[in-house]
Amino acid sequence: MNSDFLALAQPGVQKLSPYVPGKPVDELARELDLDPATIVKLASNENPLGPSPKALAAIREAVAELTRYPDGNGFALKSLLAARCGVRANQVTLGNGSNDILELVARAYLAPGLNAVFSEHAFAVYPIATQAVGAEGRVVPAKDWGHDLDAMLAAIDANTRVVFIANPNNPTGTWFGPAALADFLACVPGHVLVVLDEAYIEYAEGGEMPDGLDYLAGHPNLLVSRTFSKAYGLAALRVGYGLSSAAIADVLNRVRQPFNVNSLALAAACAALEDADYLAQSRQLNDAGMAQLEEGFRQLGLSWIPSKGNFIAVDLGRESAPLFQALLREGVIVRPVASYGMPTYLRISIGLPAENARFLEALSKVLASV
Amino acid sequence: MNSDFLALAQPGVQKLSPYVPGKPVDELARELDLDPATIVKLASNENPLGPSPKALAAIREAVAELTRYPDGNGFALKSLLAARCGVRANQVTLGNGSNDILELVARAYLAPGLNAVFSEHAFAVYPIATQAVGAEGRVVPAKDWGHDLDAMLAAIDANTRVVFIANPNNPTGTWFGPAALADFLACVPGHVLVVLDEAYIEYAEGGEMPDGLDYLAGHPNLLVSRTFSKAYGLAALRVGYGLSSAAIADVLNRVRQPFNVNSLALAAACAALEDADYLAQSRQLNDAGMAQLEEGFRQLGLSWIPSKGNFIAVDLGRESAPLFQALLREGVIVRPVASYGMPTYLRISIGLPAENARFLEALSKVLASV
Repeated sequence: MNSDFLALAQPGVQKLSPYVPGKPVDELARELDLDPATIVKLASNENPLGPSPKALAAIREAVAELTRYPDGNGFALKSLLAARCGVRANQVTLGNGSNDILELVARAYLAPGLNAVFSEHAFAVYPIATQAVGAEGRVVPAKDWGHDLDAMLAAIDANTRVVFIANPNNPTGTWFGPAALADFLACVPGHVLVVLDEAYIEYAEGGEMPDGLDYLAGHPNLLVSRTFSKAYGLAALRVGYGLSSAAIADVLNRVRQPFNVNSLALAAACAALEDADYLAQSRQLNDAGMAQLEEGFRQLGLSWIPSKGNFIAVDLGRESAPLFQALLREGVIVRPVASYGMPTYLRISIGLPAENARFLEALSKVLASV
Repeated sequence: MNSDFLALAQPGVQKLSPYVPGKPVDELARELDLDPATIVKLASNENPLGPSPKALAAIREAVAELTRYPDGNGFALKSLLAARCGVRANQVTLGNGSNDILELVARAYLAPGLNAVFSEHAFAVYPIATQAVGAEGRVVPAKDWGHDLDAMLAAIDANTRVVFIANPNNPTGTWFGPAALADFLACVPGHVLVVLDEAYIEYAEGGEMPDGLDYLAGHPNLLVSRTFSKAYGLAALRVGYGLSSAAIADVLNRVRQPFNVNSLALAAACAALEDADYLAQSRQLNDAGMAQLEEGFRQLGLSWIPSKGNFIAVDLGRESAPLFQALLREGVIVRPVASYGMPTYLRISIGLPAENARFLEALSKVLASV
């Protein structure tokens, strides 16, 4: 037998192309010999507000126990989440970011011969997690950049075990309303786990948007995934969660690593949940920044996809890759989305007013010169 | 089709019994209504020295970027480790603890129909990670509580993809020397990935022990896994690493989550690597505590397994479960190891001198009364 450790890997793994994250500031600074302080990064849908003071205080306290393992059961955070979300603690699965939750679902419920259904232009981790376990990913064409829920239903067959839907969706920012979600859940066969990814829900809450939690009691095949990486401002620490029936949570908790969430993440997430001011400021900043970018795009004669997230996909009307590179040379990092089937678009995360202005200025410059 | 989400889970997952960690101090305090400050926990092989000041300083600096995602490539830590370990950065895989490294190996190289070989009395995560992907775990009987490397070689067949060996081994503390390791590596077929788990190597380094890194160049099928959770005192943060051929590292890096190691872990690990004083103190404290426990056991007429780790397995000469419970009531948490096939033993992590004394006193009391 040979000793080619790529060929020896599982077939799904061999074909795996890893997730490409937003370019880190330090990496661009190294590559172009720039001062990191002058670089603006609007590439990873991060919260521009800076850390929550309550989260920082919780971390300062928790570092006293740095040599101790985390509470593998996450007792305090699960209790808080359960109370906040109106579920029991045994319906909560904590993850090393909500990315972990998505992968736990794939590892528990997918395998070669089975398939997962998700939309065109949906989050890259859905196909990656599906591929990693050797299952088939069924990509359903989008409608007006958003999920075509009827077509997704039609794509489900006896070998489907998971459907990933995101509301709002990243990187398009599109969303669906309560009636569409209710109809969809009513029609999905009971053996199919519906993962409703609400990573951006805190930015989107309001009249037009359904709250996934309202559907948990009626749908034992529903899992709602959420994160502390966005509106709660804890991307560095990696903490997300899934809410589902106790049966699904039991399975995911068997599959997860025993200490998948670190102690400082657990402490900071508890504090962030209690920091209502921070959340309100995050939303306010996002609403204002979204308006600022939309106005800027209007002035530049560009169109965009209306978004309920903390990001916006703008259409540059031509291949965006050269403009992305030109923006990098201006010290502005945004996100190319050609790999999402959007080659003329860039995705811009909402930043501070000055960051948004700096981006718009750089965009105006490169549009004129590239 | 039914909607029983345990029955719908993958067969390996359905039979999974999760890892049982050491009982957290807060959990015992809740259960017995004790003051957490009075509880001594010697159950999870944690570093009793408290945090490294350099790691704490690095964390204080890194929290400024709390809202930013970690560097998914771990550039700084990989560079430091590569320089320190005499490998190239593309031979390093970073993990959310070394537990993550062990699971990445299982997910990349094991599946139903394949098998992994490991020893009786070895770390519980080897069978769990193997079971989780539906592969067969081949448990090879131990020799004098340690690995029987010849018997492990004999257990390898054409469907073996992974052999897990630990040096020293947890929970027994047993070890093998350089000649035994060299002979073993020379005989393992090239298609079998050897995971050499050196989680405790920093406590064990010295004349009798091989350094796994010395064998990397000659063995493209070798992966050495290490952790910052023990001698480096960062268990709370979850950071470990694998060193291997670039081919294996490439595969594991495809499988890992894009942001599997959090930012504070990356920063603290870099600082801890540079804190030689902390490491030296950790070893010194461990050597003294080991001598203190051995002397205590001697006085109590108990035998133990000589250990190169930061823990020691002591034989109570009778079923240890009731004594474990009695120790809990004394506010002392140690680790029962009946699930490791050691029903008359308890595993004691080396603590501070006062903690070791408190444990010995409690042990003496419960041995006389239970």
